[in-house]
Amino acid sequence: MAETVVDIVTAHRAGRADPAETVARAYARARAYDDPALFITLRDEAEAIAEARALTAQGPAGKPLYGVPVAVKDNIDVAGLPTTAACPGFAYMPTRDATAVARLRAAGAIVIGKTNLDQFATGLVGVRSPYGTPRNPHDPALVPGGSSSGSAVAVAAGIVPLSLGTDTAGSGRVPAGLNNIVGLKPSLGLVPATGVVPACRSLDTISVFALTTDDAHLALAAMAGPDPADAFTRSFPAVAPGPLATGLRIGVPRHADRIFFGDGRAETAFLRALEIATELGGTLVDLDMTPFYATARLLYEGPWVAERFAAVGEFMATHPDDVHPVTSEIVLGGSRPTAVDAFQAFYKLQELRVRARETLAHVDLLMVPTAPAAYTVAELEAEPILLNSRLGTYTNFVNLLDMAGLAVPATIAEDGTPFGVTLLAPAGRDAALASLGRVLHARTGLPLGALGVPQPELPALAPVVREGEVVLAAVGAHLTGLPLNHELTGLGGRYLETTRTAADYRLFALPGTTPPKPGLLRVAAGSGGPIEVELWALSAESFGRFVAAVPSPLSIGNATLSDGRAVKCFLVEAEAVAGARDITASGGWRAFLAKAS
Amino acid sequence: MAETVVDIVTAHRAGRADPAETVARAYARARAYDDPALFITLRDEAEAIAEARALTAQGPAGKPLYGVPVAVKDNIDVAGLPTTAACPGFAYMPTRDATAVARLRAAGAIVIGKTNLDQFATGLVGVRSPYGTPRNPHDPALVPGGSSSGSAVAVAAGIVPLSLGTDTAGSGRVPAGLNNIVGLKPSLGLVPATGVVPACRSLDTISVFALTTDDAHLALAAMAGPDPADAFTRSFPAVAPGPLATGLRIGVPRHADRIFFGDGRAETAFLRALEIATELGGTLVDLDMTPFYATARLLYEGPWVAERFAAVGEFMATHPDDVHPVTSEIVLGGSRPTAVDAFQAFYKLQELRVRARETLAHVDLLMVPTAPAAYTVAELEAEPILLNSRLGTYTNFVNLLDMAGLAVPATIAEDGTPFGVTLLAPAGRDAALASLGRVLHARTGLPLGALGVPQPELPALAPVVREGEVVLAAVGAHLTGLPLNHELTGLGGRYLETTRTAADYRLFALPGTTPPKPGLLRVAAGSGGPIEVELWALSAESFGRFVAAVPSPLSIGNATLSDGRAVKCFLVEAEAVAGARDITASGGWRAFLAKAS
Repeated sequence: MAETVVDIVTAHRAGRADPAETVARAYARARAYDDPALFITLRDEAEAIAEARALTAQGPAGKPLYGVPVAVKDNIDVAGLPTTAACPGFAYMPTRDATAVARLRAAGAIVIGKTNLDQFATGLVGVRSPYGTPRNPHDPALVPGGSSSGSAVAVAAGIVPLSLGTDTAGSGRVPAGLNNIVGLKPSLGLVPATGVVPACRSLDTISVFALTTDDAHLALAAMAGPDPADAFTRSFPAVAPGPLATGLRIGVPRHADRIFFGDGRAETAFLRALEIATELGGTLVDLDMTPFYATARLLYEGPWVAERFAAVGEFMATHPDDVHPVTSEIVLGGSRPTAVDAFQAFYKLQELRVRARETLAHVDLLMVPTAPAAYTVAELEAEPILLNSRLGTYTNFVNLLDMAGLAVPATIAEDGTPFGVTLLAPAGRDAALASLGRVLHARTGLPLGALGVPQPELPALAPVVREGEVVLAAVGAHLTGLPLNHELTGLGGRYLETTRTAADYRLFALPGTTPPKPGLLRVAAGSGGPIEVELWALSAESFGRFVAAVPSPLSIGNATLSDGRAVKCFLVEAEAVAGARDITASGGWRAFLAKAS
Repeated sequence: MAETVVDIVTAHRAGRADPAETVARAYARARAYDDPALFITLRDEAEAIAEARALTAQGPAGKPLYGVPVAVKDNIDVAGLPTTAACPGFAYMPTRDATAVARLRAAGAIVIGKTNLDQFATGLVGVRSPYGTPRNPHDPALVPGGSSSGSAVAVAAGIVPLSLGTDTAGSGRVPAGLNNIVGLKPSLGLVPATGVVPACRSLDTISVFALTTDDAHLALAAMAGPDPADAFTRSFPAVAPGPLATGLRIGVPRHADRIFFGDGRAETAFLRALEIATELGGTLVDLDMTPFYATARLLYEGPWVAERFAAVGEFMATHPDDVHPVTSEIVLGGSRPTAVDAFQAFYKLQELRVRARETLAHVDLLMVPTAPAAYTVAELEAEPILLNSRLGTYTNFVNLLDMAGLAVPATIAEDGTPFGVTLLAPAGRDAALASLGRVLHARTGLPLGALGVPQPELPALAPVVREGEVVLAAVGAHLTGLPLNHELTGLGGRYLETTRTAADYRLFALPGTTPPKPGLLRVAAGSGGPIEVELWALSAESFGRFVAAVPSPLSIGNATLSDGRAVKCFLVEAEAVAGARDITASGGWRAFLAKAS
């Protein structure tokens, strides 16, 4: 039975399932889960099914989310459904979809309802809502995590395979960790926030919950891109993940900086996650987390709470009875800091950004626990602010430091408590996080969400050549494992595949070269042999730098591959091969070296 | 007699003048100018002369400012001279030079004193100082402009050829305009602000006053570069200006957005500046200035004044009698805005930044009056805040929008009032502004500052290959005026020179190419002919894109020029010239085409 987005879309496209049936099943599951705290507004089922039928009439072309039911956090506008932000008195009826929702719908997704949240997205727990606390499907005693509580539970419980949250301080990651699902927090500005009730407008992003990283990235691809209505949107390179790069340097908190507040389950789970990362070929690098933790403190001790006041403070001040008391206490505090306080915090943040950047320069990405500990609803009721704050240990600094994040499941403890890790990198590196996150999640062998079904087999990703990248055929000393390969990897080059040229080339061992190099020369069509080459992808800038450094008698021209493709390729000047040994018969430089040794 | 930095350094290096004499002459001129309001602290002359002698003992190697006397605005630390920020009660004695001052000294400059300013760099007029108003050397009735009043006058009056100011809202530009000198306001973060009394720390930059753009850029080159002690410093590409690019699109305020507050001199002067820009080959593009003016209003109506309070508010609150009443009124107002006000202003600014970016996308740079009008000291006394605010019309928005600026003289009205224009572009384009500014200033034919001596002849700049750029030899259809030249110019390529290859190449007319193309093939050394090529500079990224698009049978390899240099060059695959016509004897593709037509 189809559970993931990929499964569902594949089944719909193949005619093995029907979008209207899939939508109906989502409603049936919602009824079966029977949690009145999960959806704030469940959309009229007949209306959703009618939309599914209309979609079927259009067909699947150009619809990567063809017939996928989605749930939307109730601080994101869906036309025709009230937006409450979990505050009934605040509710309004939007006439337009949020830009991100409109893009999901254009991609074929069908909204089935609006989910519960910590009121005004203020909290990481999921217990701060007048609509109740969504039930964690792994353990009803456990908090669901927040603020995007309902959206996370809807995915973990299998009601929908995809949902939207928002993330300012961790609201798109902490609930993923506590529900054994994927929480994708895009780079700030990658997904437009038009149509979202702001929390901290300079730090907010829409986030994605899904059962797998690949599913989450399908949604991200549909939603990403500038929006003239949101001045905070930014352009980033394409977001599709590729195959896992080799030799990743994975930063982790050094031992003294690993914080679990006494939760032994989390500590054990994190060590297991580190093992998995190592098994995947990553090199762990212990990092001093001081600048990250100092930034996290700045978020709640600093002036950013004034952004919450700017968004909803007036409403709260004039509607005291409509607001959750904890939320009110926090947000109304946002009227106190002065602009002087704000600028002094920005100066401090600027210094922390520099220190964090220096720390991150030593690694490809950072891996941290998603949450340092798991708490029960009862524990939260006793310590509503302290424990909430602890849950943000590894999330609060991320948006202030302009980083992308991806929370993936790591383990489920013997008592059934899920534990996740979050991969982090500077903004724009969303795809690199996913390239690791998807295989790390697969390697855990964990079931999907709380569904009790195994993860689907992870497809090997075709190498992705991104817009603006150039494909270069390496012929000799730049091949993987040979002396100059580091020139490609050092420029961020990505290995794509090993293939062969057409039989129009001859290969020569160039005399007197250090390290030894061959030269590829085009000859009359068919009068050469196929020569093994590796294809590498480089950004235009890296390619430019690479070509600039290619020494005589080599040049970068065009070669035809055995399958007819044309790629940029190392060539040698004919004048330089006079008297050189013709090694065409070896079939390639690597084979020649193996025979010669 | 040497007046400019270039003159002075040349004379010192040639032994025609001596740093100690030059320094002594600066002191003599300071005495002759006899303005007690100009320097707040004049350094002990014997000490400065001793430093000049010590410098002479070291010799000029590696000292681009060898023996150049400089004056430093008195909100920038010079070790051993008090820093007052024009507030005697605030004075302290720094033990270290500001980073920028230390770099100037390391480059051979000799500080002769600390100059007067609008107190705490708050003002654009030069009349807000307990040390008096520096006398404008063009007209004692005219304000000198501020806040960097003393530094501007010291250069205009010929006391020093170089001085440092600071610029938050226009303090490095307005006084340049009112003194017929150059005011260089670098991109924010290009020059470290370590050791500067902050005004608005997020918007402050050290600026340079000089008699010519080339002089100002010598100082900038000495001071630019990251400083670990200043988290706001940034790395930018090299800052040296090159030859004027052809076909510049120069944005100017559309007619309705030209503001002169009734100053007919300024209006006439600006029209003349537009004519000059056109005579230099620029194309004027009328721009809607709405987002720029809205940003300017935001600076003083918004929360940024809280940065001034953060810097010196405590001092002012506790030392009311020590502070200029206008300054005090402004800065103490900085305690009022809340953090909510601050964030709301940032949201507004973000929208204005997007609109300004869209506007600027249509042009290479923006040219505006430096100040909309010139006022007398008496006028300022009558309307101290209103007229000050008017002076910032064309300057207040610049740092908020993260732009680089260069103020250059444009005309002197019949009544002797100087008028300048300011060139603006997004941060990092400092060199491009100078490439236009230097020739625009030369074209005005104006004398230097208030010295009554003509500008030195403007040297033709050697083409500059910047860090990270690649030099490519074009051989055929990419030559200037030929069908594919636009591929180079479209990628931002800059023409450098026309030259020839070594005699190791043969040129072939490739059959069946559209447009017709030649192919350059390396042959045995000396068995070819010298072939004319054009050298073009491209950024690494542009070069990468260019190479990626080069079609078979052409490739990009290395060629040796007749003078022995090696450059990237178009080459042809040998296999493709079988049967092609050898046109080596023509000496180059352009000559071949001329003969063939």
